[in-house]
Amino acid sequence: MRIALDAMGGDHAPRSTVQGAVQAAEAGVQILLVGDEAVLREEVSLLGGLPSNVVIQHAPDYVEMEDAPARSLRQKADSSLRVAFELSASGQADAVVTMGNTGAALAAGMFVARRMTSIQRPAVAALLPHPERPVVLLDVGATVEPKPEHLHQFAQMGSALARVVFGISEPEVRLLANGTEPSKGTELTREVAGRLQSDPSVVYGGYIEPDGLLAGEAPVVVTDGWTGNLLIKTAEAAVGQVTSALGDAARSNVLAKTGALLLKPSLQKELSHLEGSSAAGGLLLGIEACALVGHGAADAASVADALRFSARLVESGLMDALREAIGAE
Amino acid sequence: MRIALDAMGGDHAPRSTVQGAVQAAEAGVQILLVGDEAVLREEVSLLGGLPSNVVIQHAPDYVEMEDAPARSLRQKADSSLRVAFELSASGQADAVVTMGNTGAALAAGMFVARRMTSIQRPAVAALLPHPERPVVLLDVGATVEPKPEHLHQFAQMGSALARVVFGISEPEVRLLANGTEPSKGTELTREVAGRLQSDPSVVYGGYIEPDGLLAGEAPVVVTDGWTGNLLIKTAEAAVGQVTSALGDAARSNVLAKTGALLLKPSLQKELSHLEGSSAAGGLLLGIEACALVGHGAADAASVADALRFSARLVESGLMDALREAIGAE
Repeated sequence: MRIALDAMGGDHAPRSTVQGAVQAAEAGVQILLVGDEAVLREEVSLLGGLPSNVVIQHAPDYVEMEDAPARSLRQKADSSLRVAFELSASGQADAVVTMGNTGAALAAGMFVARRMTSIQRPAVAALLPHPERPVVLLDVGATVEPKPEHLHQFAQMGSALARVVFGISEPEVRLLANGTEPSKGTELTREVAGRLQSDPSVVYGGYIEPDGLLAGEAPVVVTDGWTGNLLIKTAEAAVGQVTSALGDAARSNVLAKTGALLLKPSLQKELSHLEGSSAAGGLLLGIEACALVGHGAADAASVADALRFSARLVESGLMDALREAIGAE
Repeated sequence: MRIALDAMGGDHAPRSTVQGAVQAAEAGVQILLVGDEAVLREEVSLLGGLPSNVVIQHAPDYVEMEDAPARSLRQKADSSLRVAFELSASGQADAVVTMGNTGAALAAGMFVARRMTSIQRPAVAALLPHPERPVVLLDVGATVEPKPEHLHQFAQMGSALARVVFGISEPEVRLLANGTEPSKGTELTREVAGRLQSDPSVVYGGYIEPDGLLAGEAPVVVTDGWTGNLLIKTAEAAVGQVTSALGDAARSNVLAKTGALLLKPSLQKELSHLEGSSAAGGLLLGIEACALVGHGAADAASVADALRFSARLVESGLMDALREAIGAE
């Protein structure tokens, strides 16, 4: 198995990506390090060379976080991101990992890897950390204004993902809504609810509100890309406000400073499953590539985690499970 | 000026409402305490009587938090909530305050007080606490699937509210969206953006994302009732997760417990402007009544605050400003 890593994507690339690749390679993952060869060689020389299972693939250009997705695709045909997807499309890589721009990754994935047959719109699935098992929330931004049939397919794909990757045999799927009674929601959610109720391939559990979602009450939660994107960003901003208030409090006087030092180890442990809950870009679903978009701020350890997780995705047979889930409609 | 208080609404009513009314009355507000007279007399006797500016208005029935809004209206014609709106409609009260069910308050307001002439849909405006001035976010649940003209009116009403109540002379209005570039958003937001740009009565500042909203970057933020409702609930749930992690950490061992005690005073100060940020139901806009829905969990002090704030709303001339803002369309 080989993973194509966009070595130029992410706030701390290429240092974080090169170091992350080396860490993941030690765990046995084969990696194609895609980026400007001269730049990557320089990074590698600082590490004293590459393990044999990490190979550099030259791509002279790269996509920046600010680049508009469609334009990055047109104007940067030799970007590390696009070349990574081409390595997947040609069968030289089994998965693509990038810490870059989610929109650009989706555009490159759609253009180079193409949509799965019978998939109408792609989705980005976020994996929200939870003490027991991650919560799959989709879509968080790929399809801003979906039709009922698109959300139906998202439910099927989310269900397949929870089953094969997280080992949940009959994952309950819920629809995000503004109340749990079936009369709540929108015209869109009520129509999707009807479709899911009559789909034997999905275990539909009704509506779920944001508190239930964040508490991990269901393994799979489906919503449109507009709502999912705003929800993720709101949760992140709200958590940021509290943690920043905590930091301000801890710096406000000597007593508070001492208190914060004593509390810190326990607090870090409690918060560890919340952090980054919203930020990780997620999995691109519905395209003919197994593609993982990590957090732009990822350090080497997070890049290594993403590479190992993408290897697990490939081993789980996710792509076949997704094709089967949507073909069974 | 007289405020009609739904004395039976709220988790801690009627104790919290009767005590809150007495507290607010000391500050000079005249209050009509609406509810079951026998029950209220009993509460009052515990306090040793009522000040002369608090008068009981008998209403035998009351709406419960679980009651469906439309049904509560039909089946409970003599509810304290409905009678409070009737006192406003007949001119006996200048404002209505309830700590009860927002949906039921909206239904009663629409039925008894009616919509303002030329208003097509009502909105609920949440006032998000912020160190400098509150942020007006509307709609947070009254109109789940609005049309562009409805959001246009919400922008006009939100702008009038920020102007007359919070003294912001030319309040900037932003539209909530999934990015700040004009190409982002949905068909709905892009059409509303066009309308706001060509409306001289509104200072339109473009799109805003959830982080900007929560950071208080604009005094007025407009969105549909679906998105606003989910955003408020997500922020509340996310803040709850962090504060609960904080509580768990503080209880985990002796060192952490000591640390938490030392940190607590500073932290409470820092968090004070975040708490309840999402929970207060808000202001009903677009109906012919000045109506404030407080948090169901309100204690006596919060009820008194809500009563004093509603007096400030009446004094500010909010109702005339709202009528003028939407008439000027």
